[in-house]
Amino acid sequence: MITRMIHGEIHELRLDRPPVNALSPDLLQMLAAEVRCSPDRGARALVLSGGEGIFSGGLDVPVLMELDRDGFARALEHFFDAIEALVASAIPVAAAITGHSPAGGAVLALSCDWRVMAEGGFTIGLNEVRIGIPVPELVADLAIRVAGARVGERLCVSGQLLSPDEALEVGFVDALAPAGEVVAAAGQWCEQIIEVPEHALAATRWVVRRDLIEKIRRHRVDDARHLTDMWFQPELRGAMQKLVAQLKKGMSAKAENSVDG
Amino acid sequence: MITRMIHGEIHELRLDRPPVNALSPDLLQMLAAEVRCSPDRGARALVLSGGEGIFSGGLDVPVLMELDRDGFARALEHFFDAIEALVASAIPVAAAITGHSPAGGAVLALSCDWRVMAEGGFTIGLNEVRIGIPVPELVADLAIRVAGARVGERLCVSGQLLSPDEALEVGFVDALAPAGEVVAAAGQWCEQIIEVPEHALAATRWVVRRDLIEKIRRHRVDDARHLTDMWFQPELRGAMQKLVAQLKKGMSAKAENSVDG
Amino acid sequence: MITRMIHGEIHELRLDRPPVNALSPDLLQMLAAEVRCSPDRGARALVLSGGEGIFSGGLDVPVLMELDRDGFARALEHFFDAIEALVASAIPVAAAITGHSPAGGAVLALSCDWRVMAEGGFTIGLNEVRIGIPVPELVADLAIRVAGARVGERLCVSGQLLSPDEALEVGFVDALAPAGEVVAAAGQWCEQIIEVPEHALAATRWVVRRDLIEKIRRHRVDDARHLTDMWFQPELRGAMQKLVAQLKKGMSAKAENSVDG
Repeated sequence: MITRMIHGEIHELRLDRPPVNALSPDLLQMLAAEVRCSPDRGARALVLSGGEGIFSGGLDVPVLMELDRDGFARALEHFFDAIEALVASAIPVAAAITGHSPAGGAVLALSCDWRVMAEGGFTIGLNEVRIGIPVPELVADLAIRVAGARVGERLCVSGQLLSPDEALEVGFVDALAPAGEVVAAAGQWCEQIIEVPEHALAATRWVVRRDLIEKIRRHRVDDARHLTDMWFQPELRGAMQKLVAQLKKGMSAKAENSVDG
Repeated sequence: MITRMIHGEIHELRLDRPPVNALSPDLLQMLAAEVRCSPDRGARALVLSGGEGIFSGGLDVPVLMELDRDGFARALEHFFDAIEALVASAIPVAAAITGHSPAGGAVLALSCDWRVMAEGGFTIGLNEVRIGIPVPELVADLAIRVAGARVGERLCVSGQLLSPDEALEVGFVDALAPAGEVVAAAGQWCEQIIEVPEHALAATRWVVRRDLIEKIRRHRVDDARHLTDMWFQPELRGAMQKLVAQLKKGMSAKAENSVDG
Repeated sequence: MITRMIHGEIHELRLDRPPVNALSPDLLQMLAAEVRCSPDRGARALVLSGGEGIFSGGLDVPVLMELDRDGFARALEHFFDAIEALVASAIPVAAAITGHSPAGGAVLALSCDWRVMAEGGFTIGLNEVRIGIPVPELVADLAIRVAGARVGERLCVSGQLLSPDEALEVGFVDALAPAGEVVAAAGQWCEQIIEVPEHALAATRWVVRRDLIEKIRRHRVDDARHLTDMWFQPELRGAMQKLVAQLKKGMSAKAENSVDG
């Protein structure tokens, strides 16, 4: 579900769960583990990439819908672990957003140090609210971190999906590249950043990211409780069942698209 | 002094105290009450608008000058209540800045979720300092929230009045519209935002605005004490008497302007 | 080493330690004292300027390399005192960045209220990490203050030196001016800001800068301990000896340049 490709000191972790890289509990658990073991495996920087035309379609709602309360709570822990592993990674991580990146996919990208997105008809955004799921506090932390309080609030509350150009303008992503060159662009960013001497890089990243890391760790506990409570309320289950139906249509379309594109 | 216009689930609260919508204690008390009762009256979003050519000329200094210490302190409470009612509103509020919006007028606009301003020869800004009134902490909170720390500091300290284009560039407002279409533009923003399911919208706004709400509530107590102390010092009273003279000239000019424009 | 030029209520403090205004402990001690005594000497605003073609080359590493642990710790105190004197100055300070401004030079500029930089082939940036020195927390505070969390993090971690245009775009500086007009532009900013009544200006600056002042005061203690520990580790001393060799070449080049330019 995750492929590691080693280019010297830069390792690429590619999300590889067709057709849309839906974030299942297993994939998320593996992602957290792969991020955390990367320094020991010789990496000085990471690229987190997805598939052609789709970075990740977000959390795997059909799988989540089948879980009982304990199972759902554990699945959330895996999601939050993956976010925390990225945010608190000992080495820098560049997100190569190879295509669509809604909801959970956008959250993983926001957890990285730097983001480059494929040009073209792709979208990225925190559209959770549009389907009735309130934005958790740790996601708001990430959005406000990259886009500032005014724009970050807007992104969370409106649930708007942004085009690559719009995402660049508000700082949701840091650069754009042609679809076939996104992973290479992320690799180049990694090459530049590891020119900084290793100890100074690690110490400086800790200084500037510590407040974010602490917020994520503080907020994930309440976020998990609130989301779990909400997940089993009848209104949300109805909305989720509709979503699953839509997703099935959407996934087919996206899967075709990623074959065509 | 405030007119409520009901367009389905979107209610417009129009400041209606000619000639310049000066913010008297009565108007502010009514504004806070109208904002707070809006959800119970069936509103899912609010537009806060002003008159043609003038959103609000700011606090009603001539009226404030006639108050004793207790009266002034109560007037400030009404101002801060109006700010807090907007910031902590259970439903989103779009400011339709229909014209000039200095000082207290700008503060009300900054307390809303989103701002659209009329194009043309209008200005908006925190010009309190220019007439000798230090910016209270809760106003600095609002300015830094919308424009970031560097630009927010600059806006508070310089007291600069901005043209619509300048206001858009620094994020003081989010959009511009022709003078006759400002209220409609604010209404459209409301229509889009209430597409978000009600519970998810309310919960997400609480998550992203809670820190601001808490700052406003924490700072208003000290702000009220400092401003009241200052208000009765001889230097400030001299400056205020000058201002009242200027305002009388300015108000006539603006009243004429709003008839012409 | 510092020349005070008095233009009415606006005083210029010019760094004057050829060839590159390297920040020696003596110069920094003097700078902190000169900033602090300026209100008593009749100044209502300050311009902090450097030499033609070079604002400051940063900390005087060759001098620092000769100090023992106590001496180094005292030298750091002088650097942090100068930063704190600028950040917490009772009157506004405009930085006239007359040329190159790497590392410690950039930090002094960031400590001021407003920055104008000379157009041309100059650079500014927090390149400490590139030579193996982690960015101290109080420097990260300053960078995030002016550029926001996302861009400020990037500036600290990458150690990138920016052209004047790049510095303007990210907010590292607020304006550009032709090389010969930088000091005048800073003076004009001062003239405008002192139009704000004295008490309102001071009180408002305190309100909007207090959080930054408190962060600097809180972080400088740990920063001093960490940097001192690090300074006497063998890896860093090796890197510093290389740097001193490079600096000697660079300084000659810059000194020639400042004669030519």
